[in-house]
Amino acid sequence: MEVKLKKPILDLNNRLAQENRELMAARGIFVLDLLASPGAGKTSLILATIEALRSNYRIAVIEGDIASDVDAVKIKEAGIPAIQINTGGACHLESAMIARALEALDLDNLDLIIIENVGNLVCPTDFDLGEDAKAMILSVPEGHDKPLKYPGVFQVAQAVILNKVDTLASFNFDEGAFKESVAQLNPHAVLFPLSALTHEGVVAWAQWLSQRIEEKKSCNS
Amino acid sequence: MEVKLKKPILDLNNRLAQENRELMAARGIFVLDLLASPGAGKTSLILATIEALRSNYRIAVIEGDIASDVDAVKIKEAGIPAIQINTGGACHLESAMIARALEALDLDNLDLIIIENVGNLVCPTDFDLGEDAKAMILSVPEGHDKPLKYPGVFQVAQAVILNKVDTLASFNFDEGAFKESVAQLNPHAVLFPLSALTHEGVVAWAQWLSQRIEEKKSCNS
Repeated sequence: MEVKLKKPILDLNNRLAQENRELMAARGIFVLDLLASPGAGKTSLILATIEALRSNYRIAVIEGDIASDVDAVKIKEAGIPAIQINTGGACHLESAMIARALEALDLDNLDLIIIENVGNLVCPTDFDLGEDAKAMILSVPEGHDKPLKYPGVFQVAQAVILNKVDTLASFNFDEGAFKESVAQLNPHAVLFPLSALTHEGVVAWAQWLSQRIEEKKSCNS
Repeated sequence: MEVKLKKPILDLNNRLAQENRELMAARGIFVLDLLASPGAGKTSLILATIEALRSNYRIAVIEGDIASDVDAVKIKEAGIPAIQINTGGACHLESAMIARALEALDLDNLDLIIIENVGNLVCPTDFDLGEDAKAMILSVPEGHDKPLKYPGVFQVAQAVILNKVDTLASFNFDEGAFKESVAQLNPHAVLFPLSALTHEGVVAWAQWLSQRIEEKKSCNS
């Protein structure tokens, strides 16, 4: 029953995603859709990314959560525009929600929009929001076997971030096995081991994102 | 669109869940549905629970995963029957999947079935599988703010397990704030801080589960 219904829902989602994509292309704004489990460090990485890029780029954040606005509050405290979407139970964001959030942003004065999706390694995978890239975070405490168990999200991500590497000594995390599994599922994914807390490794990630922002701006000029 | 469709899907699921429940009631088997994010420690806690209870009870495990059989292999290595369900993309288990798994188990020789749901704090919340209780795990690295962001799962859980307490010193986890949020969302939930790795706190959890198994058996005698 669900399977049959999935296609029309995805078709509608994809059409609105394409409208979002065209709107962003016209403005030269790079849009990143960030996926991860609850507690993997999405908001912390966004805050670290803002610190690394805010002197060069104008940034806004769209926060997706089942409930609450605690993440949007943290972003606003950093002096960055943030739109909170509460999905009210839905396990992922959809392109229609993003379209409404974009209406609330000052698109003439932005280079980068980061979308923090609902904490979930499964549902957001299938939904195009009109982004330029999906990136995903796995955190060390979650374990190195997650690519085997949640292959879809590793396959759609252009960048795979391994967060909380400052805690590697406390967990039985086999970094070699993890890298090998990711490479098998998605040979084109770029891997960034980092700690959003200590900022170790954040520069390499910020450089990758910065290069993608520049490419997008150059397409528009 | 999704909202309208949700009701008939849930009605069908609830009907089959009731059939599972009646089948288990007739046998006096206690069924636990265990929910958590990927990497919160579901399989590790199941293994620790098996060690604590195997001398008194006959146990089987139903493993739900998007893909792979790594969890079922771990359970079988412990000498316990395990049925792997691969949902092939679906973000939760449904009662029809459980009905098929039950057919593969030797129900005349079981006291406890633990269902490890797909790693996801959102989707499994709404689905009755015919279980006697849902329990959920939050792990310390995920952060104390998760009840605010994923209230539903904390509301349906009879037991809330805080796992990886051996790593409390490495993370900014406010245990008091966590307990307060859980108590507000679900005053009847029993909270078990423990470490499936060091086994600290596992006895209290196993005692609670043991008591529930005895209650179920006594209803049937």
